[in-house]
Amino acid sequence: MRTSIATVCLSGTLDEKLRAAARAGFDGVEIFEQDLIVSPDSPEAIAAQAAELGLTLDLFQPFRDFEGVDEEQFVANLARAEAKFRLMKRLGMDTMLLCSNVGTATIGDDGIVVEQLRRLGDLAERYGVDVAYEALAWGRFVSEYDRAWDLVKAADHPRIGTCLDSFHILSRGTDLSRISEIPGEKIFFLQLADAPALSMDVLSWSRHHRVFPGEGAWDLTDFLTRVALTGYAGPVSLEVFNDSFRQADTQRTAVDGLRSLRWLEAATAEQVAAPDAGSTGTAAATDGMPAKADASQVRLDLQRLPEVAEPRGVDYVELDTDDLGALTRQIHQLGFRFVGFHRTKPHVQLWRRGQARIVVTESTDIDLVSVDSAVSGTHLRGIGFAVADADAAMDRAILLQATEVPRDQAHDEEVLRGVFAPDGSEVFFGDGTGIDPTWTEEFGNVPDDRRSAIDHVNLAQPAHHYDEAVLFYTSLLALHAQASNDVPSPSGLVRSQVMASSDGAIRMPLNLAPRSAETSVTGDYPEHVALACDDIFTAAATAVSRGLDFLPVPENYYEDLEARFDLAPELLQRLRENNILYDRDDRGEFLHFYTSTIGSVFFEMVERRNDYQGYGAPNAPVRLAAQHRRNSGR
Amino acid sequence: MRTSIATVCLSGTLDEKLRAAARAGFDGVEIFEQDLIVSPDSPEAIAAQAAELGLTLDLFQPFRDFEGVDEEQFVANLARAEAKFRLMKRLGMDTMLLCSNVGTATIGDDGIVVEQLRRLGDLAERYGVDVAYEALAWGRFVSEYDRAWDLVKAADHPRIGTCLDSFHILSRGTDLSRISEIPGEKIFFLQLADAPALSMDVLSWSRHHRVFPGEGAWDLTDFLTRVALTGYAGPVSLEVFNDSFRQADTQRTAVDGLRSLRWLEAATAEQVAAPDAGSTGTAAATDGMPAKADASQVRLDLQRLPEVAEPRGVDYVELDTDDLGALTRQIHQLGFRFVGFHRTKPHVQLWRRGQARIVVTESTDIDLVSVDSAVSGTHLRGIGFAVADADAAMDRAILLQATEVPRDQAHDEEVLRGVFAPDGSEVFFGDGTGIDPTWTEEFGNVPDDRRSAIDHVNLAQPAHHYDEAVLFYTSLLALHAQASNDVPSPSGLVRSQVMASSDGAIRMPLNLAPRSAETSVTGDYPEHVALACDDIFTAAATAVSRGLDFLPVPENYYEDLEARFDLAPELLQRLRENNILYDRDDRGEFLHFYTSTIGSVFFEMVERRNDYQGYGAPNAPVRLAAQHRRNSGR
Repeated sequence: MRTSIATVCLSGTLDEKLRAAARAGFDGVEIFEQDLIVSPDSPEAIAAQAAELGLTLDLFQPFRDFEGVDEEQFVANLARAEAKFRLMKRLGMDTMLLCSNVGTATIGDDGIVVEQLRRLGDLAERYGVDVAYEALAWGRFVSEYDRAWDLVKAADHPRIGTCLDSFHILSRGTDLSRISEIPGEKIFFLQLADAPALSMDVLSWSRHHRVFPGEGAWDLTDFLTRVALTGYAGPVSLEVFNDSFRQADTQRTAVDGLRSLRWLEAATAEQVAAPDAGSTGTAAATDGMPAKADASQVRLDLQRLPEVAEPRGVDYVELDTDDLGALTRQIHQLGFRFVGFHRTKPHVQLWRRGQARIVVTESTDIDLVSVDSAVSGTHLRGIGFAVADADAAMDRAILLQATEVPRDQAHDEEVLRGVFAPDGSEVFFGDGTGIDPTWTEEFGNVPDDRRSAIDHVNLAQPAHHYDEAVLFYTSLLALHAQASNDVPSPSGLVRSQVMASSDGAIRMPLNLAPRSAETSVTGDYPEHVALACDDIFTAAATAVSRGLDFLPVPENYYEDLEARFDLAPELLQRLRENNILYDRDDRGEFLHFYTSTIGSVFFEMVERRNDYQGYGAPNAPVRLAAQHRRNSGR
Repeated sequence: MRTSIATVCLSGTLDEKLRAAARAGFDGVEIFEQDLIVSPDSPEAIAAQAAELGLTLDLFQPFRDFEGVDEEQFVANLARAEAKFRLMKRLGMDTMLLCSNVGTATIGDDGIVVEQLRRLGDLAERYGVDVAYEALAWGRFVSEYDRAWDLVKAADHPRIGTCLDSFHILSRGTDLSRISEIPGEKIFFLQLADAPALSMDVLSWSRHHRVFPGEGAWDLTDFLTRVALTGYAGPVSLEVFNDSFRQADTQRTAVDGLRSLRWLEAATAEQVAAPDAGSTGTAAATDGMPAKADASQVRLDLQRLPEVAEPRGVDYVELDTDDLGALTRQIHQLGFRFVGFHRTKPHVQLWRRGQARIVVTESTDIDLVSVDSAVSGTHLRGIGFAVADADAAMDRAILLQATEVPRDQAHDEEVLRGVFAPDGSEVFFGDGTGIDPTWTEEFGNVPDDRRSAIDHVNLAQPAHHYDEAVLFYTSLLALHAQASNDVPSPSGLVRSQVMASSDGAIRMPLNLAPRSAETSVTGDYPEHVALACDDIFTAAATAVSRGLDFLPVPENYYEDLEARFDLAPELLQRLRENNILYDRDDRGEFLHFYTSTIGSVFFEMVERRNDYQGYGAPNAPVRLAAQHRRNSGR
C-alpha cells in the first residue's frame, strides 16, 4: 500500500515536512499549497528535493471555489486553474484536488456543474493533469460524496475523477454503501482522517480536531476496506488538521502518522480477506459492504503485521529510584515481600505481592545522566506485559515504527525486549500469562499465593502526544480506548482516558495534565500503580501497623458520602478511620486508598467488589486536591 | 451592587479561592460543593474564614437530579437534600441552588414536579433555607427559564424561588421578554456568564468555554438590565466554567472577574436610566424590554464609572532597547526623524514620522533588573493613547482594578499616568487628539507634516490571559472586539483578535501564540508596530536607499498572487522587487512590507487604498514562515 501524507498535517517549513515524511517512511506527500507559497524554494527545487528523498508528490491541494458559478466568474476560475496546472508541471505533479465550492457557488444546477467540470477536464488534458473532485462536508451545493460522484460520472471525462475523504464522509454519517458503485479507477485520490466524537459545527471539527486513523472514534478499517474493494490502487493518504499536531515535533508526528497507516493497512488486509468475520464495523456500518467474493478486486497491496492478541496481564512494573529506602519501605508497608536481588545486577531488586510484581532499580548518578536528564528521582520506568508471543509483539512494534529500548537497559537475562512508549517509558514484552513468569527466577524464588495483582497503572502523558499514545497502545498492544473524561484539579482539568484489554487484565488510564501558566511544559502530574487486593481493610491494617503515610481524605468527603449513599454507619466509620474512599455503580463497589508520593510515583490499593469496572472517578478530585495541598506545603 | 463569584471560576484550593475573591474585592462567593468536599477545613472553619475575610457565603451549589422522580426515589432525594441543608446551617448559609433534573427525571408532569418542589420547600422551611430552582439548558424536562419560573410560581412556596443564569438562557436563545413577569423577590439568585459564539453541544460549551461578561459575544448589559428592572436586589454573581481560568493564577482571575462586574454594573446603570437610548442590545434583543418608567423599580445599587469615549488616536509607542544603534537605525530607515532627547532624561529619545511617534528608551542593566527580569532586549514597553479626558480614563482604570504604573517609570514631565495591561505592557492616557501632543515639546520641536501615523500595534498575549485582555481593552478604553481568526504558522495556529475603535484610529490585533512542546510557556511570538503611509513605494525606496533589512517574501507568493488577482505586470514586478505584500477586498487594497525583528519587535509599513479595513490576514502565514526560517537560521 502506497502511503502518503498531506504537508498540512505536520509542523515546520515545507523543507522540514518533506524530510520528516521521508524519514518516517512515507512513499509520498500531498503538497498543501499554502506550504508551497510560504516556501523560499522554487517548485523545481522542491521537486528535486522530493525526488532525492524518495518521495512522490501525489496531490496538489486544495483548489477551491471553482464550479457552480456564472460564466464570467468561471472564465476567471479557469485562468486560476491554468496557473496552478502550470505550477504543477514545474513540480512534476499530475493530480489536483478540487474541493466542492463553498464560497462563490451561486448555481446548484447539475447540468452547469457537469459542464464546468468537463471544461476543466479539457484544460487539464492539455497539461496532462488529473482532477480529483471532492465533496466538502460544508460545500454550498455539493456536500456528499455520492453527489460528487454522480457529477463526476455525468461529466464522463478521463481527466475528472473523485477524491474520497473519510472526514467529509464519516462526519456527515452518510450511507457508505454507494462507495461500491464507484469504479476504483475513477477514485483519483483517497484521504483519511479519524476524529473524536464531538458535537460541534463540522467546519471547526474538521479544521482543529482531526486525528490519525486509530486515534478517534471512527471505523477507518471498514472505510478503507470499502474503498479497497472498488479496486482503488492509488496512494492512501493522511489529511489531518489538528491544532496539537501543528505544534508538535515534526518528526514525531510523521512517525505517528505512518504508524496509523501501517496499523490500518494490516487491519484492512484482515477484513478484506474475511469481511464478514473479523469486521470491526458495527452491523449498521457494514450495510452494503460487498460480499467476500469481491476480494479479488483489491489492487492495494495490503501488508499484514504479525498479529498480537491482547496482553494477558501485567508481568511487572519497573520503578527507578534515587531513594531506595523510602520506596522499598512504602512497598513493604503495602504488603509487598522482598523476593531478591537480581542474580547479576545487585542494584535491581524484585518485590511481590501475590501476582503484583515491582522491579526496583536503584539509579546511580551515571544512569541519570545517560538516560534522560529530565527524568530523575523516583519514577515509573516501564511496564512488562505478558503476551502470547513476545517475539511477534516485538516484531510488530518495530514494524509500527516503535524505537527499541537499547539492550543494555533490559534488566534481566532472559533478554526481554521492549520499546519506548510516547511518554518515554518502556514497554516490555514477556511470553506467558502474567502468572509467575520464569524471569522472576533470576531474583530467587519466594512463593506468594496471595490474591493480589496490579489493577491498573495510571500514566501521565506529555502535551501534544496524547493521541499518539492512544494509537501506540491500540496498535502495539491491541488495547481499547474507553471514553475519556475530564477530572477537575486545583490547577485545571485533567483529561483522562483508559486504555484497557477486554477482560480488564490490562487497565491504563492515560492522563493529560493541565499546563498551567506557572508550571513548565509537561506539568507535574504524578503517575501511580494501583494494586488489587481482596480485603482493603486488612491491607489498610497492615499498612497502618507498618507506618504507611496515607494520603489524607477530608472529613467533608465522608459527610458527602453519607448523603450520597446509604452506607452502614460502621462501614462509613471504617472508611473514615483508614482514609479509604468509596464508589459504587450498578455493578458493584470500589474501595481504595492512596499513599503519599515519592518522586513522581505513588500507590493505590483497591478492592473491587462484584463487577465494578471503573476507577473511582468521582473520588479523583479529592486525591488531586490533597496532592495539591501537599505539594504546596499546606 | 453586591458582587459574588462561584468558587468553581477560580483555580486552587477553597482556601486560596476565598482569599483571592476577598482580595479582589468581591462581597461574597458561591460555594461550589466539590470545592468544599475536597477541603480539609470543616464547614465551621470555612464560615469563620469567610467572615474574617468579609465575604458572605451567598449560594450553596449545585444540588442536582431532585425533581420529576417516583416517590421512592423522591424520598431518598429529600433525605439527600436534608443532609445538605444541615451542612448549609453549619456554613451559616441560607440559599441553595437546585438545578433542573438532568439524569434521573422520569416524570415531566407539571403537577408532580410542583408538588415535589413544594415538599422540598416545606423541608427547607424547617432549616430556614431558600431554594433557587434553575433550568439547566440541557435539563431533561425543564430547560427554559420561563418554564422553571412557571413551576416555581405554581409551587407558590415562600422558600422556593428561581435562579436565572445567563448562560443557560442566552445559550438557548430563549425569548427574554418573560423575565419581566418574574417578581424580583422570587428571583432568589442571579448567575452571569458570557460565552463566545460557538456552535457545539451546549453542555461542552457550558463546561469549558464560558467567560466573564464582556469577554464573549453576548449582551450581558441588556440581560442584567432586564433582571434589574424586576426589582431583584440580591447578589450579582459570576459562574464561569473555563478550562483556561481553571489553570490560571487564582488572584488574576478573581481581579478579572470583578472588573467584568464593575464594567457591567456601570453599563447597566446607564442603560437602566435610558433603556431606549444607550441600549447595547439589538432590536430583537430588546424586545419586551419594559419601558423607561419602570426604572424606579430597580433595587440594585448600580454604581457608575467615569465615562470614557473611544481613544482618538495613538500618541506614541514606547520601545525599550538594549541595542539603541540597531533600533534607531531601523526606525530611521523607515523614514522616522529624530526629534530629540528628553529634556531631563537623556536615555529617552523621541522619533517621529508624521503623526507616528516612537519613544525609545535605552535600558540600563538596572532597569532590566528592577522592571521584570523576564523582559529584556528590545521590546514594546507601552502605548500612549490620546483620550478626551485622561484623568477620567485613569480614574476609571483604577476603579476597574488596573494596577497603576509606578510614577518614576512615567517617562516625561507632564505626569502622564498609566496602568499595566494583562500582558505587562503599559497603557498611558494623554489628553488630546493624538495630533502634536504637548508633551512632545519636552523633546524639542521638529515639525513634520507628512501623512503618516501608527496604523496598528500587534501585541502578543500570554497564555491564560487572552480573555482578560479583551475585557481590559473593552472596559478601560472602550475598544471593540472584532471577530477572531486563526493564522497558521510553522509552529502552530496563532489565534488573533483585533481590538479597535469604531473609526479605526486605534487598531490592536491581540495574538495568542501556540505553545509548542519545545518552547516555553509564552512562546516567542514577536510584537510589531505598523505604520501607515501614503505611498508604500516611496517608503520602500527610502528604506532601500538606507539599507533596511526587509523580511524577504518568497517568489512563490508572487506567483500565487498573479493567479489570484488580476494585477498589472508592472505592479506585480514592483511588489516583488520591494518585498511588498498585497491584499484586496471589496472595499479597497492593502500593500505592506515587514522589517526584520530586533529583540522581540519588528515593524510593518502599510498603505491602505480606498476603504480597506483588514490587516492582510491572507499574508500573515507568509510573514510567520519567513520569521520562523530566520529564527531557526535557515
